[in-house]
Amino acid sequence: MAAASASPQTLPGPPPSPGPGPPPGPAGDDSGAEGGAAADGGAGGEAETEEFVCPAHCTELAWRQNEQRRQGLYCDITLAFGGGARQAPPLEVRAHRSVLAAATDYFEPLLSGGFAESRSGRVELRKWSSEGGPDPETVEAVVGFMYTGIICVSPGNVHEVLEMADRFLLTRLKDFCGEFLKKKLNLSNCVAIHSLAHMYSLSQLALKAADMIRRNFFRVIQDEEFYTLPFHLIRDWLSDLEITVDSEEVLFETILKWVQRSPDERESRQPRSYLKRWVHPG
Amino acid sequence: MAAASASPQTLPGPPPSPGPGPPPGPAGDDSGAEGGAAADGGAGGEAETEEFVCPAHCTELAWRQNEQRRQGLYCDITLAFGGGARQAPPLEVRAHRSVLAAATDYFEPLLSGGFAESRSGRVELRKWSSEGGPDPETVEAVVGFMYTGIICVSPGNVHEVLEMADRFLLTRLKDFCGEFLKKKLNLSNCVAIHSLAHMYSLSQLALKAADMIRRNFFRVIQDEEFYTLPFHLIRDWLSDLEITVDSEEVLFETILKWVQRSPDERESRQPRSYLKRWVHPG
Repeated sequence: MAAASASPQTLPGPPPSPGPGPPPGPAGDDSGAEGGAAADGGAGGEAETEEFVCPAHCTELAWRQNEQRRQGLYCDITLAFGGGARQAPPLEVRAHRSVLAAATDYFEPLLSGGFAESRSGRVELRKWSSEGGPDPETVEAVVGFMYTGIICVSPGNVHEVLEMADRFLLTRLKDFCGEFLKKKLNLSNCVAIHSLAHMYSLSQLALKAADMIRRNFFRVIQDEEFYTLPFHLIRDWLSDLEITVDSEEVLFETILKWVQRSPDERESRQPRSYLKRWVHPG
Repeated sequence: MAAASASPQTLPGPPPSPGPGPPPGPAGDDSGAEGGAAADGGAGGEAETEEFVCPAHCTELAWRQNEQRRQGLYCDITLAFGGGARQAPPLEVRAHRSVLAAATDYFEPLLSGGFAESRSGRVELRKWSSEGGPDPETVEAVVGFMYTGIICVSPGNVHEVLEMADRFLLTRLKDFCGEFLKKKLNLSNCVAIHSLAHMYSLSQLALKAADMIRRNFFRVIQDEEFYTLPFHLIRDWLSDLEITVDSEEVLFETILKWVQRSPDERESRQPRSYLKRWVHPG
C-alpha cells in the first residue's frame, strides 16, 4: 500500500505517554463526547504534541463493564454472600477481578496473591449483621457502586450499605452513609443510629446522636429501641455525667426493664451497680 | 451483636437501583472526592432516598485498571500486533477482555462469541501499513486510550494512531486525528495528508487537503512526496478539472518522473492517456 509511506512531517523521538496515575486536577466535565485537546508546551519535538481527552470515556467504560457483569460476560470471580453451614445457600454474584481490585483495596490482596480465593475464583463473605447475609437488592446496589460510583441510599438499606461499605473499605460511601444518617436523626431513631455510629466508627455521627440522647434522655428511655442496646452501651449511658433525670426511680425502672428483656443473660451483668453515681452524686 | 437489630426507621419496599445505562446528563465534574447527593422526589417510600454520586470514581477505576494492565494483573487476553509468517515475532500486549469490549465494539464479537480468539485468549492483529506492525510506543498509547480516554497525539505518531483508531472503531479518536491533521496541513505535507484522509474516509480533511493541492499544484509537483502516490490518486489529480497549470510540458514531465520512480510497475498503467484533457481541453 503506497500510503504506508505517507507520513506528515515526522518528528524524531517517541511521543510522551500518559503516566501511571489519573491526570492531575479536573479530568473534564463528563458532559459530552466532543473531547478536548491541550497543546503541549514542551520544548523540541514535543511542542506539536496534543493531548486528546475524551471526557465521557471513563464513565461509559464503567457503566458498560457493569452491564457486562449483569449479563455475566467476561466475569472471573464469584462473590458468595452469607451461606454459613446451617444457613440457606449463599447469594452468588459474578464480577470482574480487575474492577473489584481497582474499586477497593479490600479485594486486591485476596485476588492477586497466593490466597485460596485467587486460585478458586470464589470469595466467601460470611458473618453479616443479618443472619442470612445482606439483602440481595442491597448487594446488587453496592457491587454496582463499585463499578459506577453511584448508589441510591434509603432509610431501608442504609444500615446494610454502611455495613458493606465498612467491610469493603469504601470510605467515601461509608462517609456518605454517616451524613445521610445525620440528616435522618430524630428522637425515635437516635438510639439505633448511635449504636450504628459506634459500631462503624462514625465519630461525628456518634457525637450528634449522643448529644440528642443526652438532651432527651427521659423520652429516649420510653422507646423500646433503648432496651435492645447491648450491655456496654447501657453501662455507658448510666455512667454518663452529662445526663440529668428528674428522679432515681425512673432510672431504676429503666434498668429493671432492660434486664427483664433477657433476664438469663442480663442479670449476671449487675447493671444496678452503675446506678451508684445517681444515688450518691459527686 | 445487638446492634444487628438497630435499623433506623425502616421503610417498606426495595430501594431503586441504578439502571443499566450511564446517568443522563453531566455525571459530575470529576473534580474531587467529596461526592454529591440528590434527594429523590418520588412518591411514597422512595421520598427519603438519596443518590450518592462519587464523581472521581470512574476515572480512578479506569486508571487503576490501566495500571493493572501495565503490571499484567488479572489480564485474560493477549493482543498480538504484526507478526506475519516471515516477520519478526509479534508485539504482545496483555489486557482485560472486559475493558476492551467496553471500550470498543471491535472486540466484543471476537471475545464474547464462539470465535477462536475467545477460546484461545489471543487476538492476532495482522496487516498494518508498516510491515512489522505499529510502533510499540504507539500501541501502548492507543491501548492506554482504550482504558483511560486520554492520549498524546504528535506529528510522529498521528498516522499510526489514526490507523489503529480506524481499525478498532475508536470514532472519537479518529475524528480527533482528522482535526489534528487539518491544523498541521501545509504545502509540504498536503499530498501525504490527502492520501491518509482518503484511506481513512476523513472527508472534511480530504476536501481541505485537496483544495490546498489544487491551489498550489505547480508547487506540489516539485515535492518528492507527490511521486510516491499510488496510480489511482495520480490518475485523479491528472483528471481534475479544477487544476490549472501554465504549460502541458510540466505535466508531461510530472508523469515521466512518476513512471521513472518505478518503471516496471508503472509503465503498464499508461498514465499518458490521462493527459488527454490537457491536450484537448473542453
